[in-house]
Amino acid sequence: MSLTLPALVPGADRANVIRGVAEASRTASRMVAKASAEVRRTALTAIADAIEGMRNEILAANANDVAAASKLSAAMIDRLRLDDARIASLARAVREIAAAEELVGRIDRTETRPNGLIVERVRIPLGVIAMIYEARPNVTVDAAALCLKAGNACILRGGREALESNRALLAAVQAGLVSAGLPREAVQLVPFVEREAIADLVALEDLIDLAIPRGGEGLIRYVAEHARVPVIKHYKGVCHIYVHSGDLHDAVEIVRNAKVSRPGVCNALETLLVDSSIAGAFIPRLVAALPEVELRGDDATRALGGPSVRAATEEDWFAEYLDLILAVRVVDGVEAAIRHIEHYGSSHTESILTTETLTAERFVREVDSSTVMVNASTRFADGGELGLGAEIGISTTRLHAYGPMGAEGLTTTKFVVRGNGQTRT
Amino acid sequence: MSLTLPALVPGADRANVIRGVAEASRTASRMVAKASAEVRRTALTAIADAIEGMRNEILAANANDVAAASKLSAAMIDRLRLDDARIASLARAVREIAAAEELVGRIDRTETRPNGLIVERVRIPLGVIAMIYEARPNVTVDAAALCLKAGNACILRGGREALESNRALLAAVQAGLVSAGLPREAVQLVPFVEREAIADLVALEDLIDLAIPRGGEGLIRYVAEHARVPVIKHYKGVCHIYVHSGDLHDAVEIVRNAKVSRPGVCNALETLLVDSSIAGAFIPRLVAALPEVELRGDDATRALGGPSVRAATEEDWFAEYLDLILAVRVVDGVEAAIRHIEHYGSSHTESILTTETLTAERFVREVDSSTVMVNASTRFADGGELGLGAEIGISTTRLHAYGPMGAEGLTTTKFVVRGNGQTRT
Repeated sequence: MSLTLPALVPGADRANVIRGVAEASRTASRMVAKASAEVRRTALTAIADAIEGMRNEILAANANDVAAASKLSAAMIDRLRLDDARIASLARAVREIAAAEELVGRIDRTETRPNGLIVERVRIPLGVIAMIYEARPNVTVDAAALCLKAGNACILRGGREALESNRALLAAVQAGLVSAGLPREAVQLVPFVEREAIADLVALEDLIDLAIPRGGEGLIRYVAEHARVPVIKHYKGVCHIYVHSGDLHDAVEIVRNAKVSRPGVCNALETLLVDSSIAGAFIPRLVAALPEVELRGDDATRALGGPSVRAATEEDWFAEYLDLILAVRVVDGVEAAIRHIEHYGSSHTESILTTETLTAERFVREVDSSTVMVNASTRFADGGELGLGAEIGISTTRLHAYGPMGAEGLTTTKFVVRGNGQTRT
Repeated sequence: MSLTLPALVPGADRANVIRGVAEASRTASRMVAKASAEVRRTALTAIADAIEGMRNEILAANANDVAAASKLSAAMIDRLRLDDARIASLARAVREIAAAEELVGRIDRTETRPNGLIVERVRIPLGVIAMIYEARPNVTVDAAALCLKAGNACILRGGREALESNRALLAAVQAGLVSAGLPREAVQLVPFVEREAIADLVALEDLIDLAIPRGGEGLIRYVAEHARVPVIKHYKGVCHIYVHSGDLHDAVEIVRNAKVSRPGVCNALETLLVDSSIAGAFIPRLVAALPEVELRGDDATRALGGPSVRAATEEDWFAEYLDLILAVRVVDGVEAAIRHIEHYGSSHTESILTTETLTAERFVREVDSSTVMVNASTRFADGGELGLGAEIGISTTRLHAYGPMGAEGLTTTKFVVRGNGQTRT
């Protein structure tokens, strides 16, 4: 599928062109699903080889994207840029996915019914995945590899800032597919850069089994509003740590790690809840230990933290700053902490720091976020860190997947029933 | 929540009233999720007791519905009608759900990561379920009981034909809830009978976690078109049997069971594929054995079956008759059978009758319907028959659940991560 610039395709035809892409994807998905685990593993290895072999073309294409991206923020350009180390890392990720446990055909359960029917649940691919994202070319490779691992075809729609990079990476992916005897249409790019193409894509209820948007809240809401296919998504990560008890030095280290190690990602800490029983000792330490972080506190926090703590407004408790800003609130006990999270949280990740087992267990039981932690940094809410292998996304809605989602989330199970002539009475 | 007749509530307020119902449901869902397994079991047992104890009120209400339903078909009235035996059966189903395996809090997996983090997947309720159905009052009780079993609250929207019956059953359900100390708002009815109330309900993305429509294709399409919440559904069941080889008497018995035992349900046989290698012997037997069934065949079938077989049109291969009609086609081998199912099927249930293991395994592997069978009647595609306990619905879309769905399908898992101070490098 060559990429057509929008001016070359009249708008009236766009939906039909995208339907054609999806039909080819549906056909290819059947061939991928039928392929043996060995063929899919061979294809993934060939993709990793092709990414390394086509390094120069990929870097040249990426340089064009970076040159054209002068209006983007430095952080955006950093996400867009590829270099030798990042290309090596892309190829390594694909090899790890190739080596991971095989999922397709796995029998998750077997039961023999009283009438002799043997009922199995057998893991199968979802079919066709539409992946909609922004300017991170690594998502192109990760998504293609995870979808193939799980036996799916995929249609990728990256940001226009990464178009040249994605075309070059797609060429490597398709070269790998073809060398293993799989159809190149198993991984395709949407050949339009305008946003309306996303709406055309996610309307194809008969051809696409799942849409996964990743990126800013605006993109995700656009997909959710236009989708007629199922969507797995999270709008934002307003992650909390509740410091209840324990070593205050350790607590500050965990808070620092959660807020400062990578503030622009969805598992970064955004609101800190401090138990009133330790606030007097903890908050001055916090202020001293996070000089580069702007703190926004409630009255109790400001009274203890001094003039450097700005006054938090109601909006701060809902905010996903993605920046070196932290909202801080003093709460009276675990119940108040849970109620705060229930009201202001985003169902992403929350952690309690405590030495009291019963309090930890109550927090774990009653906080219904997709990842709930005890005595650990929220930054571990990540498919790789939690043992899923690579991650295709994080879900904060509860259907199908809740929390980080890896290759297994790109599969489902069917019932296989074996009998010897049974009829139902 | 008392039921308000539509005339008493101006249309402009409907959406707000329904939002209020859903907010109460959300609050109640937290209390149900927090309740112990024993409390939920006690509530279910109390509901079963209340259904039996309020038998006379329920039968009187149902008699009003039946009296008002004179315009409905005999089959519809049969589905609507309750009697002593059906009430006993409703109560028994609730007791069976109460006695089934506990799901909430079950730890599905545990893994210790190299850094010492212990990662668990813990089963939790989905939250608030919206159940939209037609004139079968038994769905009111089954859905309420399954949702409670899985720790959820639910909002029920049955057909207006069953309104009085559903109000009486709701009174029993809420009496059971209250006697166990759970909020009556854990199970509510939508207090409007007009169809637009369904659209209001399934638009509440912030309050409802899942909508499950059950009924005719028109109702299900209406829900899918208006939903902003995830929907688990199947439009129709165009179930196939492919007679490949084996004892032809047994094959006719299975076909007869699949078509005739209950033709109006979604797992009934609709299209029969007959391998050309046995068609000459099989089709005359079929015609003789199913005199009450109207057969619609392709040319080969008509040549072998004689003048009683009508000519099938293209539409017949897509048809869900829900009646004593069967489409019959002769196919050349398993590949042709699989292609037919792929093109015309509904992803519901297909069965192969064969003595050849390799052919059976190919059919099982390549047919991607939610239930694939070997040597058994399609009528077994049912949650109870396949070991799920009671069934809340059948999904032919692959997200979250595929095939019959029981109480476990009304739960998901969250990640619980236990550390001792880990930070991410």
